[in-house]
Amino acid sequence: MTAGTQPSEIRRITSPANAAVKEVRALHQKKYREQTGLFIAEGLRILSEAVDQGHRIETLVILPQMREHRVGRRLVQACLDGGGQVLEVTEAVLAKVARKENPQGAVGVFRQRWEGLSDIDARGDFCWAVLEAIRDPGNLGTILRTCDSIGAQGVILLDQSCDPYSLEGVRASMGSVFGQRLAHASFDDFMAWRRGQGGTMVGASLKGDVDYQKVRYERPTFVLMGNEQSGLPARYEAACDRLVRIPMRGRADSLNVAIAASLLLYEVYNQDRRRA
Amino acid sequence: MTAGTQPSEIRRITSPANAAVKEVRALHQKKYREQTGLFIAEGLRILSEAVDQGHRIETLVILPQMREHRVGRRLVQACLDGGGQVLEVTEAVLAKVARKENPQGAVGVFRQRWEGLSDIDARGDFCWAVLEAIRDPGNLGTILRTCDSIGAQGVILLDQSCDPYSLEGVRASMGSVFGQRLAHASFDDFMAWRRGQGGTMVGASLKGDVDYQKVRYERPTFVLMGNEQSGLPARYEAACDRLVRIPMRGRADSLNVAIAASLLLYEVYNQDRRRA
Repeated sequence: MTAGTQPSEIRRITSPANAAVKEVRALHQKKYREQTGLFIAEGLRILSEAVDQGHRIETLVILPQMREHRVGRRLVQACLDGGGQVLEVTEAVLAKVARKENPQGAVGVFRQRWEGLSDIDARGDFCWAVLEAIRDPGNLGTILRTCDSIGAQGVILLDQSCDPYSLEGVRASMGSVFGQRLAHASFDDFMAWRRGQGGTMVGASLKGDVDYQKVRYERPTFVLMGNEQSGLPARYEAACDRLVRIPMRGRADSLNVAIAASLLLYEVYNQDRRRA
Repeated sequence: MTAGTQPSEIRRITSPANAAVKEVRALHQKKYREQTGLFIAEGLRILSEAVDQGHRIETLVILPQMREHRVGRRLVQACLDGGGQVLEVTEAVLAKVARKENPQGAVGVFRQRWEGLSDIDARGDFCWAVLEAIRDPGNLGTILRTCDSIGAQGVILLDQSCDPYSLEGVRASMGSVFGQRLAHASFDDFMAWRRGQGGTMVGASLKGDVDYQKVRYERPTFVLMGNEQSGLPARYEAACDRLVRIPMRGRADSLNVAIAASLLLYEVYNQDRRRA
Protein backbone atom coordinates (compact mmCIF):
# COMPACT_ATOMS: atom_id res chain seq x y z
CA MET A 1 0.00 0.00 0.00
CA THR A 2 1.46 3.36 -0.95
CA ALA A 3 0.99 6.52 1.07
CA GLY A 4 -1.38 7.84 -1.57
CA THR A 5 -3.93 5.06 -1.04
CA GLN A 6 -4.03 5.34 2.77
CA PRO A 7 -7.22 6.53 4.41
CA SER A 8 -6.62 9.94 5.91
CA GLU A 9 -7.13 8.64 9.44
CA ILE A 10 -3.99 6.49 9.25
CA ARG A 11 -0.84 8.48 9.85
CA ARG A 12 2.70 7.22 9.39
CA ILE A 13 5.01 8.41 12.11
CA THR A 14 8.72 7.75 12.51
CA SER A 15 9.62 10.19 15.29
CA PRO A 16 8.99 9.50 18.98
CA ALA A 17 8.81 13.29 19.36
CA ASN A 18 5.66 13.47 17.22
CA ALA A 19 2.87 15.25 19.11
CA ALA A 20 0.30 12.45 18.77
CA VAL A 21 2.85 9.89 19.96
CA LYS A 22 3.80 12.11 22.86
CA GLU A 23 0.16 12.32 23.94
CA VAL A 24 -0.03 8.53 24.09
CA ARG A 25 3.25 8.32 25.99
CA ALA A 26 2.00 10.88 28.50
CA LEU A 27 -0.54 8.27 29.64
CA HIS A 28 2.24 6.52 31.52
CA GLN A 29 1.77 9.31 34.07
CA LYS A 30 -1.08 8.93 36.53
CA LYS A 31 -1.71 12.68 36.46
CA TYR A 32 -2.32 12.65 32.74
CA ARG A 33 -4.52 9.54 32.97
CA GLU A 34 -6.63 11.34 35.55
CA GLN A 35 -6.89 14.51 33.47
CA THR A 36 -7.94 12.70 30.32
CA GLY A 37 -9.76 9.65 31.68
CA LEU A 38 -7.77 7.57 29.18
CA PHE A 39 -5.30 4.69 29.56
CA ILE A 40 -3.16 2.41 27.42
CA ALA A 41 -3.14 -1.32 26.85
CA GLU A 42 -0.73 -3.39 24.81
CA GLY A 43 -0.70 -6.45 22.60
CA LEU A 44 -2.89 -7.61 19.71
CA ARG A 45 -4.69 -10.24 21.77
CA ILE A 46 -5.63 -7.95 24.64
CA LEU A 47 -6.67 -5.14 22.30
CA SER A 48 -8.79 -7.61 20.40
CA GLU A 49 -10.53 -8.75 23.59
CA ALA A 50 -11.16 -5.13 24.52
CA VAL A 51 -12.88 -4.54 21.18
CA ASP A 52 -14.93 -7.75 21.63
CA GLN A 53 -16.14 -6.37 24.94
CA GLY A 54 -17.29 -3.13 23.39
CA HIS A 55 -14.38 -0.86 24.26
CA ARG A 56 -13.62 1.77 21.64
CA ILE A 57 -9.97 2.30 20.60
CA GLU A 58 -9.38 6.05 20.72
CA THR A 59 -5.87 5.78 19.29
CA LEU A 60 -4.22 2.69 17.86
CA VAL A 61 -0.43 2.69 17.63
CA ILE A 62 0.61 -0.17 15.39
CA LEU A 63 3.52 -1.55 13.39
CA PRO A 64 2.89 -1.53 9.62
CA GLN A 65 3.50 -5.27 9.30
CA MET A 66 0.69 -5.97 11.82
CA ARG A 67 -1.76 -4.61 9.28
CA GLU A 68 -1.02 -7.65 7.13
CA HIS A 69 -2.41 -9.91 9.86
CA ARG A 70 -6.07 -10.68 10.41
CA VAL A 71 -6.14 -9.41 14.00
CA GLY A 72 -4.16 -6.28 13.13
CA ARG A 73 -6.46 -5.47 10.22
CA ARG A 74 -9.49 -5.99 12.42
CA LEU A 75 -8.12 -3.62 15.09
CA VAL A 76 -7.38 -0.93 12.50
CA GLN A 77 -10.90 -1.28 11.11
CA ALA A 78 -12.50 -1.22 14.57
CA CYS A 79 -10.52 1.87 15.50
CA LEU A 80 -11.44 3.74 12.32
CA ASP A 81 -15.09 2.63 12.52
CA GLY A 82 -15.24 4.08 16.02
CA GLY A 83 -13.81 7.40 14.85
CA GLY A 84 -10.37 6.80 16.37
CA GLN A 85 -6.98 7.59 14.89
CA VAL A 86 -4.42 5.02 13.75
CA LEU A 87 -0.73 5.79 14.10
CA GLU A 88 1.48 3.53 12.04
CA VAL A 89 4.90 3.66 13.66
CA THR A 90 8.35 2.12 13.60
CA GLU A 91 9.43 -0.52 16.12
CA ALA A 92 11.58 2.06 17.87
CA VAL A 93 8.61 4.39 18.35
CA LEU A 94 6.33 1.56 19.52
CA ALA A 95 8.96 0.44 22.03
CA LYS A 96 8.98 3.98 23.44
CA VAL A 97 5.19 4.05 23.62
CA ALA A 98 4.99 0.63 25.30
CA ARG A 99 8.10 1.21 27.44
CA LYS A 100 9.21 -2.25 26.47
CA GLU A 101 11.90 -3.62 24.22
CA ASN A 102 9.79 -6.03 22.20
CA PRO A 103 6.28 -4.59 22.27
CA GLN A 104 3.59 -6.98 21.09
CA GLY A 105 2.67 -5.33 17.81
CA ALA A 106 0.28 -2.64 18.96
CA VAL A 107 -0.74 -0.28 21.74
CA GLY A 108 -4.25 1.07 22.13
CA VAL A 109 -5.63 4.07 23.99
CA PHE A 110 -8.98 3.47 25.70
CA ARG A 111 -11.36 5.37 27.93
CA GLN A 112 -11.42 4.36 31.62
CA ARG A 113 -14.74 3.08 32.95
CA TRP A 114 -15.59 3.85 36.54
CA GLU A 115 -18.98 3.30 38.09
CA GLY A 116 -20.47 5.11 41.05
CA LEU A 117 -21.49 2.76 43.85
CA SER A 118 -24.97 4.29 43.86
CA ASP A 119 -25.41 2.99 40.31
CA ILE A 120 -24.46 -0.57 41.25
CA ASP A 121 -27.11 -3.03 42.34
CA ALA A 122 -25.19 -6.09 43.54
CA ARG A 123 -28.19 -7.98 44.89
CA GLY A 124 -28.30 -10.63 42.15
CA ASP A 125 -24.52 -10.78 41.82
CA PHE A 126 -22.09 -13.58 42.60
CA CYS A 127 -19.00 -11.87 43.99
CA TRP A 128 -17.09 -8.60 44.28
CA ALA A 129 -13.55 -8.03 45.54
CA VAL A 130 -13.17 -5.01 47.82
CA LEU A 131 -9.60 -3.82 48.25
CA GLU A 132 -8.46 -1.36 50.88
CA ALA A 133 -5.63 1.01 49.88
CA ILE A 134 -3.88 -1.53 47.70
CA ARG A 135 -0.46 -0.22 46.70
CA ASP A 136 0.99 -2.42 44.00
CA PRO A 137 -0.65 -2.29 40.55
CA GLY A 138 0.77 -5.74 39.77
CA ASN A 139 -1.16 -7.17 42.71
CA LEU A 140 -4.29 -5.26 41.71
CA GLY A 141 -4.08 -6.45 38.10
CA THR A 142 -3.53 -10.03 39.24
CA ILE A 143 -6.60 -9.84 41.49
CA LEU A 144 -8.66 -8.49 38.55
CA ARG A 145 -7.47 -11.49 36.51
CA THR A 146 -8.54 -13.95 39.22
CA CYS A 147 -11.89 -12.17 39.62
CA ASP A 148 -12.43 -12.56 35.89
CA SER A 149 -11.49 -16.25 36.11
CA ILE A 150 -14.18 -17.04 38.66
CA GLY A 151 -16.83 -14.91 36.99
CA ALA A 152 -16.87 -12.23 39.69
CA GLN A 153 -18.51 -8.91 38.86
CA GLY A 154 -15.66 -6.56 39.65
CA VAL A 155 -13.49 -4.73 42.13
CA ILE A 156 -14.34 -1.91 44.51
CA LEU A 157 -11.30 0.12 45.54
CA LEU A 158 -11.46 1.72 48.97
CA ASP A 159 -9.50 4.77 50.11
CA GLN A 160 -6.20 5.65 48.37
CA SER A 161 -5.60 2.86 45.91
CA CYS A 162 -3.01 2.43 43.20
CA ASP A 163 -4.31 2.80 39.66
CA PRO A 164 -5.76 -0.28 37.91
CA TYR A 165 -5.30 1.63 34.64
CA SER A 166 -1.52 1.99 35.01
CA LEU A 167 0.32 -0.02 32.38
CA GLU A 168 1.63 -2.39 35.04
CA GLY A 169 -1.90 -2.98 36.33
CA VAL A 170 -3.32 -3.49 32.86
CA ARG A 171 -0.49 -5.90 32.00
CA ALA A 172 -0.93 -7.95 35.18
CA SER A 173 -4.68 -8.12 34.54
CA MET A 174 -3.99 -9.64 31.10
CA GLY A 175 -6.98 -7.76 29.74
CA SER A 176 -9.34 -8.51 32.64
CA VAL A 177 -9.45 -4.79 33.39
CA PHE A 178 -11.73 -4.59 30.33
CA GLY A 179 -14.14 -7.24 31.57
CA GLN A 180 -14.38 -6.49 35.29
CA ARG A 181 -16.42 -3.59 36.67
CA LEU A 182 -14.57 -0.95 38.70
CA ALA A 183 -15.63 1.48 41.39
CA HIS A 184 -13.86 3.46 44.06
CA ALA A 185 -15.32 4.78 47.27
CA SER A 186 -14.52 5.77 50.81
CA PHE A 187 -15.07 3.05 53.39
CA ASP A 188 -18.06 4.90 54.88
CA ASP A 189 -19.74 5.30 51.51
CA PHE A 190 -19.04 1.67 50.75
CA MET A 191 -20.58 0.55 54.06
CA ALA A 192 -23.67 2.70 53.53
CA TRP A 193 -24.13 1.11 50.10
CA ARG A 194 -23.28 -2.40 51.27
CA ARG A 195 -26.13 -2.46 53.85
CA GLY A 196 -28.66 -2.60 51.05
CA GLN A 197 -27.01 -5.46 49.18
CA GLY A 198 -27.42 -8.53 51.41
CA GLY A 199 -25.03 -11.47 51.05
CA THR A 200 -21.81 -12.01 52.98
CA MET A 201 -18.99 -9.56 53.59
CA VAL A 202 -15.90 -11.55 54.46
CA GLY A 203 -12.55 -10.13 55.45
CA ALA A 204 -9.23 -11.96 55.32
CA SER A 205 -7.09 -11.36 58.37
CA LEU A 206 -4.28 -12.96 60.32
CA LYS A 207 -6.58 -12.32 63.29
CA GLY A 208 -9.49 -14.14 61.64
CA ASP A 209 -11.29 -16.49 64.03
CA VAL A 210 -12.46 -19.04 61.48
CA ASP A 211 -10.81 -21.13 58.76
CA TYR A 212 -11.64 -19.73 55.30
CA GLN A 213 -12.97 -23.13 54.27
CA LYS A 214 -15.38 -23.36 57.21
CA VAL A 215 -17.57 -20.41 56.24
CA ARG A 216 -20.57 -20.65 53.94
CA TYR A 217 -20.39 -17.78 51.48
CA GLU A 218 -23.78 -16.42 50.42
CA ARG A 219 -24.29 -14.45 47.24
CA PRO A 220 -23.35 -11.75 46.76
CA THR A 221 -20.03 -12.30 48.52
CA PHE A 222 -17.88 -9.24 49.17
CA VAL A 223 -14.26 -10.34 49.66
CA LEU A 224 -12.49 -7.60 51.61
CA MET A 225 -8.69 -7.49 51.55
CA GLY A 226 -6.37 -5.08 53.34
CA ASN A 227 -3.28 -3.31 52.14
CA GLU A 228 0.02 -5.13 51.50
CA GLN A 229 1.83 -3.71 54.52
CA SER A 230 -0.75 -3.41 57.25
CA GLY A 231 -3.73 -5.59 56.38
CA LEU A 232 -7.23 -4.43 57.28
CA PRO A 233 -7.76 -1.61 59.80
CA ALA A 234 -9.57 -2.79 62.95
CA ARG A 235 -12.70 -0.80 62.05
CA TYR A 236 -12.91 -2.58 58.70
CA GLU A 237 -12.43 -5.96 60.33
CA ALA A 238 -15.23 -5.19 62.77
CA ALA A 239 -17.58 -4.39 59.90
CA CYS A 240 -17.17 -7.81 58.28
CA ASP A 241 -19.84 -10.49 58.69
CA ARG A 242 -17.06 -13.05 58.95
CA LEU A 243 -13.35 -12.59 59.51
CA VAL A 244 -11.52 -15.57 58.12
CA ARG A 245 -8.00 -16.85 58.43
CA ILE A 246 -6.06 -18.68 55.75
CA PRO A 247 -4.09 -21.31 57.68
CA MET A 248 -0.30 -21.39 57.47
CA ARG A 249 2.21 -23.74 59.02
CA GLY A 250 5.59 -22.72 57.69
CA ARG A 251 7.95 -19.97 58.72
CA ALA A 252 6.28 -17.33 56.54
CA ASP A 253 3.91 -15.17 58.57
CA SER A 254 1.77 -13.87 55.75
CA LEU A 255 0.83 -14.41 52.13
CA ASN A 256 1.13 -12.04 49.21
CA VAL A 257 -2.16 -10.08 49.01
CA ALA A 258 -2.98 -11.29 45.49
CA ILE A 259 -2.39 -14.88 46.62
CA ALA A 260 -4.56 -14.48 49.73
CA ALA A 261 -7.32 -12.79 47.70
CA SER A 262 -7.21 -15.52 45.08
CA LEU A 263 -7.36 -18.33 47.65
CA LEU A 264 -10.42 -16.71 49.20
CA LEU A 265 -12.07 -15.90 45.84
CA TYR A 266 -11.54 -19.49 44.70
CA GLU A 267 -13.04 -20.84 47.93
CA VAL A 268 -16.14 -18.70 47.25
CA TYR A 269 -16.20 -20.00 43.67
CA ASN A 270 -15.59 -23.63 44.65
CA GLN A 271 -18.50 -23.53 47.09
CA ASP A 272 -20.71 -21.82 44.53
CA ARG A 273 -19.99 -24.37 41.80
CA ARG A 274 -20.53 -27.29 44.20
CA ARG A 275 -23.98 -25.86 45.01
CA ALA A 276 -24.84 -25.19 41.35
CA MET B 1 30.17 6.06 69.65
CA THR B 2 33.16 7.88 68.16
CA ALA B 3 35.24 6.64 65.25
CA GLY B 4 38.07 5.79 67.62
CA THR B 5 36.05 3.21 69.57
CA GLN B 6 34.70 1.35 66.54
CA PRO B 7 35.80 -2.22 65.98
CA SER B 8 38.04 -2.36 62.95
CA GLU B 9 35.54 -4.46 61.00
CA ILE B 10 33.04 -1.60 60.87
CA ARG B 11 33.82 0.86 58.14
CA ARG B 12 32.15 4.22 57.61
CA ILE B 13 31.51 4.95 53.96
CA THR B 14 29.94 8.03 52.40
CA SER B 15 30.70 7.49 48.73
CA PRO B 16 28.68 5.20 46.47
CA ALA B 17 31.89 4.82 44.44
CA ASN B 18 33.66 3.07 47.33
CA ALA B 19 35.07 -0.27 46.18
CA ALA B 20 33.32 -2.36 48.88
CA VAL B 21 30.00 -0.68 48.12
CA LYS B 22 30.50 -1.23 44.41
CA GLU B 23 31.06 -4.93 45.02
CA VAL B 24 27.72 -5.16 46.79
CA ARG B 25 25.98 -3.17 44.05
CA ALA B 26 27.46 -5.48 41.40
CA LEU B 27 25.26 -8.25 42.84
CA HIS B 28 22.29 -6.69 41.06
CA GLN B 29 23.78 -8.33 37.95
CA LYS B 30 23.03 -12.00 37.43
CA LYS B 31 26.49 -12.55 35.95
CA TYR B 32 28.18 -11.30 39.11
CA ARG B 33 25.84 -13.32 41.33
CA GLU B 34 26.81 -16.44 39.36
CA GLN B 35 30.53 -15.68 39.56
CA THR B 36 30.51 -15.10 43.31
CA GLY B 37 27.65 -17.33 44.47
CA LEU B 38 26.45 -14.37 46.56
CA PHE B 39 23.19 -12.38 46.61
CA ILE B 40 21.63 -9.46 48.46
CA ALA B 41 18.57 -9.16 50.66
CA GLU B 42 17.07 -6.07 52.23
CA GLY B 43 15.30 -4.99 55.38
CA LEU B 44 16.00 -5.53 59.07
CA ARG B 45 13.23 -8.08 59.48
CA ILE B 46 14.25 -10.27 56.59
CA LEU B 47 17.94 -10.09 57.50
CA SER B 48 17.03 -11.04 61.02
CA GLU B 49 15.09 -14.08 59.85
CA ALA B 50 18.01 -15.10 57.65
CA VAL B 51 20.31 -15.02 60.67
CA ASP B 52 17.77 -17.01 62.71
CA GLN B 53 17.85 -19.67 60.03
CA GLY B 54 21.61 -19.96 60.15
CA HIS B 55 22.59 -17.83 57.17
CA ARG B 56 25.83 -15.93 57.61
CA ILE B 57 25.92 -12.22 56.64
CA GLU B 58 29.04 -11.79 54.49
CA THR B 59 28.62 -8.03 54.26
CA LEU B 60 26.14 -5.87 56.16
CA VAL B 61 25.40 -2.42 54.74
CA ILE B 62 23.59 -0.44 57.39
CA LEU B 63 22.57 3.08 58.38
CA PRO B 64 24.32 4.33 61.54
CA GLN B 65 21.00 5.02 63.32
CA MET B 66 19.98 1.36 62.88
CA ARG B 67 22.78 0.38 65.21
CA GLU B 68 20.86 2.08 68.02
CA HIS B 69 18.04 -0.44 67.57
CA ARG B 70 17.95 -3.91 69.05
CA VAL B 71 17.58 -5.68 65.70
CA GLY B 72 20.23 -3.54 64.04
CA ARG B 73 22.70 -4.20 66.87
CA ARG B 74 21.98 -7.90 66.69
CA LEU B 75 22.65 -7.96 62.94
CA VAL B 76 25.93 -6.10 63.35
CA GLN B 77 26.99 -8.55 66.06
CA ALA B 78 25.94 -11.58 64.02
CA CYS B 79 27.83 -10.29 61.00
CA LEU B 80 31.02 -9.59 62.97
CA ASP B 81 30.78 -12.91 64.84
CA GLY B 82 30.61 -14.70 61.51
CA GLY B 83 33.69 -12.90 60.23
CA GLY B 84 31.76 -10.59 57.91
CA GLN B 85 32.32 -6.90 57.25
CA VAL B 86 29.97 -4.11 58.30
CA LEU B 87 29.66 -1.03 56.10
CA GLU B 88 28.06 1.91 57.84
CA VAL B 89 26.72 4.14 55.09
CA THR B 90 24.62 7.23 54.42
CA GLU B 91 20.99 6.98 53.29
CA ALA B 92 22.03 8.03 49.79
CA VAL B 93 24.54 5.18 49.57
CA LEU B 94 22.09 2.64 50.97
CA ALA B 95 19.46 3.76 48.46
CA LYS B 96 21.96 3.09 45.67
CA VAL B 97 22.80 -0.32 47.11
CA ALA B 98 19.13 -1.28 47.53
CA ARG B 99 18.05 0.44 44.27
CA LYS B 100 15.17 1.89 46.21
CA GLU B 101 14.31 5.34 47.50
CA ASN B 102 13.52 4.43 51.08
CA PRO B 103 15.53 1.31 51.82
CA GLN B 104 14.54 -0.48 54.98
CA GLY B 105 17.57 0.25 57.12
CA ALA B 106 19.99 -2.41 55.95
CA VAL B 107 21.10 -4.63 53.11
CA GLY B 108 22.92 -7.92 53.64
CA VAL B 109 25.08 -10.02 51.36
CA PHE B 110 24.58 -13.77 51.72
CA ARG B 111 25.83 -16.94 50.08
CA GLN B 112 23.40 -18.74 47.76
CA ARG B 113 22.46 -22.27 48.75
CA TRP B 114 21.80 -24.73 45.96
CA GLU B 115 21.42 -28.45 46.47
CA GLY B 116 22.09 -31.18 43.95
CA LEU B 117 19.06 -33.40 43.33
CA SER B 118 21.19 -36.47 44.06
CA ASP B 119 21.65 -35.18 47.61
CA ILE B 120 17.90 -34.75 48.18
CA ASP B 121 15.87 -37.59 49.63
CA ALA B 122 12.25 -36.45 49.37
CA ARG B 123 10.67 -39.71 50.49
CA GLY B 124 9.53 -38.48 53.90
CA ASP B 125 8.69 -35.01 52.64
CA PHE B 126 5.36 -33.22 52.34
CA CYS B 127 5.59 -31.18 49.16
CA TRP B 128 7.92 -29.65 46.57
CA ALA B 129 7.11 -27.15 43.83
CA VAL B 130 8.71 -27.93 40.48
CA LEU B 131 8.79 -24.99 38.07
CA GLU B 132 9.59 -25.28 34.39
CA ALA B 133 11.47 -22.33 32.84
CA ILE B 134 9.76 -19.72 35.00
CA ARG B 135 10.58 -16.24 33.70
CA ASP B 136 9.46 -13.67 36.22
CA PRO B 137 11.40 -13.46 39.52
CA GLY B 138 8.36 -11.82 41.17
CA ASN B 139 6.30 -14.92 40.39
CA LEU B 140 9.11 -17.20 41.57
CA GLY B 141 9.53 -15.29 44.84
CA THR B 142 5.78 -15.32 45.44
CA ILE B 143 5.67 -19.10 44.91
CA LEU B 144 8.56 -19.51 47.39
CA ARG B 145 6.53 -17.48 49.89
CA THR B 146 3.45 -19.68 49.43
CA CYS B 147 5.60 -22.84 49.69
CA ASP B 148 6.94 -21.54 52.97
CA SER B 149 3.40 -20.78 54.18
CA ILE B 150 2.23 -24.36 53.71
CA GLY B 151 5.38 -25.93 55.10
CA ALA B 152 6.62 -27.26 51.76
CA GLN B 153 10.25 -28.32 51.50
CA GLY B 154 11.36 -26.23 48.56
CA VAL B 155 11.43 -25.51 44.87
CA ILE B 156 13.09 -27.40 42.05
CA LEU B 157 13.77 -25.24 39.00
CA LEU B 158 13.76 -27.02 35.65
CA ASP B 159 15.55 -25.86 32.51
CA GLN B 160 16.31 -22.13 32.02
CA SER B 161 14.74 -20.41 35.01
CA CYS B 162 14.93 -16.84 36.21
CA ASP B 163 17.05 -16.30 39.31
CA PRO B 164 15.41 -16.71 42.74
CA TYR B 165 18.36 -14.77 44.15
CA SER B 166 17.69 -11.63 42.12
CA LEU B 167 16.62 -8.74 44.33
CA GLU B 168 13.11 -8.84 42.86
CA GLY B 169 12.84 -12.56 43.62
CA VAL B 170 14.17 -12.15 47.15
CA ARG B 171 11.80 -9.24 47.77
CA ALA B 172 8.75 -11.12 46.49
CA SER B 173 9.71 -14.11 48.64
CA MET B 174 9.67 -11.87 51.73
CA GLY B 175 12.55 -13.88 53.14
CA SER B 176 11.20 -17.31 52.24
CA VAL B 177 14.17 -17.79 49.94
CA PHE B 178 16.14 -18.33 53.16
CA GLY B 179 13.82 -21.03 54.46
CA GLN B 180 12.97 -23.02 51.36
CA ARG B 181 15.38 -25.48 49.77
CA LEU B 182 16.43 -24.84 46.16
CA ALA B 183 17.68 -27.07 43.38
CA HIS B 184 17.90 -26.80 39.62
CA ALA B 185 18.03 -29.62 37.13
CA SER B 186 17.22 -30.62 33.59
CA PHE B 187 13.86 -32.32 33.14
CA ASP B 188 15.53 -35.66 32.35
CA ASP B 189 17.69 -35.53 35.48
CA PHE B 190 14.65 -34.54 37.51
CA MET B 191 12.60 -37.45 36.15
CA ALA B 192 15.41 -39.93 36.81
CA TRP B 193 15.57 -38.70 40.41
CA ARG B 194 11.80 -38.49 40.83
CA ARG B 195 11.31 -42.23 40.06
CA GLY B 196 12.92 -43.11 43.36
CA GLN B 197 10.83 -40.73 45.46
CA GLY B 198 7.26 -42.14 45.40
CA GLY B 199 4.33 -39.83 46.06
CA THR B 200 2.31 -37.93 43.47
CA MET B 201 3.57 -35.75 40.65
CA VAL B 202 0.77 -33.44 39.62
CA GLY B 203 0.87 -30.97 36.76
CA ALA B 204 -1.43 -27.99 36.34
CA SER B 205 -2.66 -27.56 32.80
CA LEU B 206 -5.51 -26.00 30.88
CA LYS B 207 -5.70 -29.45 29.24
CA GLY B 208 -5.94 -31.21 32.62
CA ASP B 209 -8.61 -33.90 32.66
CA VAL B 210 -9.53 -33.69 36.33
CA ASP B 211 -10.60 -30.94 38.72
CA TYR B 212 -7.71 -30.01 41.07
CA GLN B 213 -9.98 -30.69 44.06
CA LYS B 214 -10.88 -34.22 42.91
CA VAL B 215 -7.40 -35.68 43.19
CA ARG B 216 -5.97 -37.23 46.33
CA TYR B 217 -2.45 -35.91 46.78
CA GLU B 218 -0.07 -38.42 48.39
CA ARG B 219 3.13 -37.37 50.12
CA PRO B 220 5.50 -36.33 48.80
CA THR B 221 3.54 -34.24 46.30
CA PHE B 222 5.47 -32.67 43.44
CA VAL B 223 3.50 -29.72 42.06
CA LEU B 224 4.69 -29.12 38.50
CA MET B 225 3.95 -25.75 36.89
CA GLY B 226 4.82 -24.56 33.39
CA ASN B 227 6.20 -21.30 32.16
CA GLU B 228 4.14 -18.07 32.13
CA GLN B 229 3.72 -17.95 28.35
CA SER B 230 3.40 -21.50 27.20
CA GLY B 231 2.51 -23.69 30.17
CA LEU B 232 3.93 -27.21 30.41
CA PRO B 233 5.46 -28.89 27.34
CA ALA B 234 3.50 -31.99 26.22
CA ARG B 235 6.32 -34.32 27.30
CA TYR B 236 6.21 -32.89 30.82
CA GLU B 237 2.44 -33.22 30.98
CA ALA B 238 2.71 -36.86 29.89
CA ALA B 239 5.16 -37.56 32.72
CA CYS B 240 2.73 -36.40 35.44
CA ASP B 241 0.80 -38.92 37.52
CA ARG B 242 -2.18 -36.57 37.36
CA LEU B 243 -2.83 -33.59 35.15
CA VAL B 244 -5.28 -31.29 36.88
CA ARG B 245 -7.31 -28.34 35.76
CA ILE B 246 -8.21 -25.34 37.89
CA PRO B 247 -11.78 -24.50 36.81
CA MET B 248 -12.62 -21.07 35.42
CA ARG B 249 -15.86 -19.58 34.25
CA GLY B 250 -15.15 -15.99 33.37
CA ARG B 251 -13.69 -14.44 30.27
CA ALA B 252 -10.08 -14.88 31.41
CA ASP B 253 -8.53 -17.93 29.82
CA SER B 254 -5.71 -18.48 32.28
CA LEU B 255 -4.45 -17.58 35.73
CA ASN B 256 -1.20 -15.94 36.74
CA VAL B 257 1.32 -18.75 37.33
CA ALA B 258 1.93 -17.81 40.98
CA ILE B 259 -1.84 -17.79 41.58
CA ALA B 260 -2.33 -21.18 39.89
CA ALA B 261 0.63 -22.65 41.80
CA SER B 262 -0.69 -21.29 45.10
CA LEU B 263 -4.21 -22.63 44.53
CA LEU B 264 -2.77 -26.07 43.85
CA LEU B 265 -0.27 -25.93 46.73
CA TYR B 266 -3.06 -24.89 49.12
CA GLU B 267 -5.27 -27.73 47.91
CA VAL B 268 -2.42 -30.14 48.69
CA TYR B 269 -2.03 -28.49 52.11
CA ASN B 270 -5.78 -28.39 52.82
CA GLN B 271 -6.08 -32.11 52.13
CA ASP B 272 -3.01 -32.85 54.22
CA ARG B 273 -4.26 -30.90 57.23
CA ARG B 274 -7.72 -32.51 56.99
CA ARG B 275 -6.06 -35.94 57.13
CA ALA B 276 -3.73 -34.98 59.99
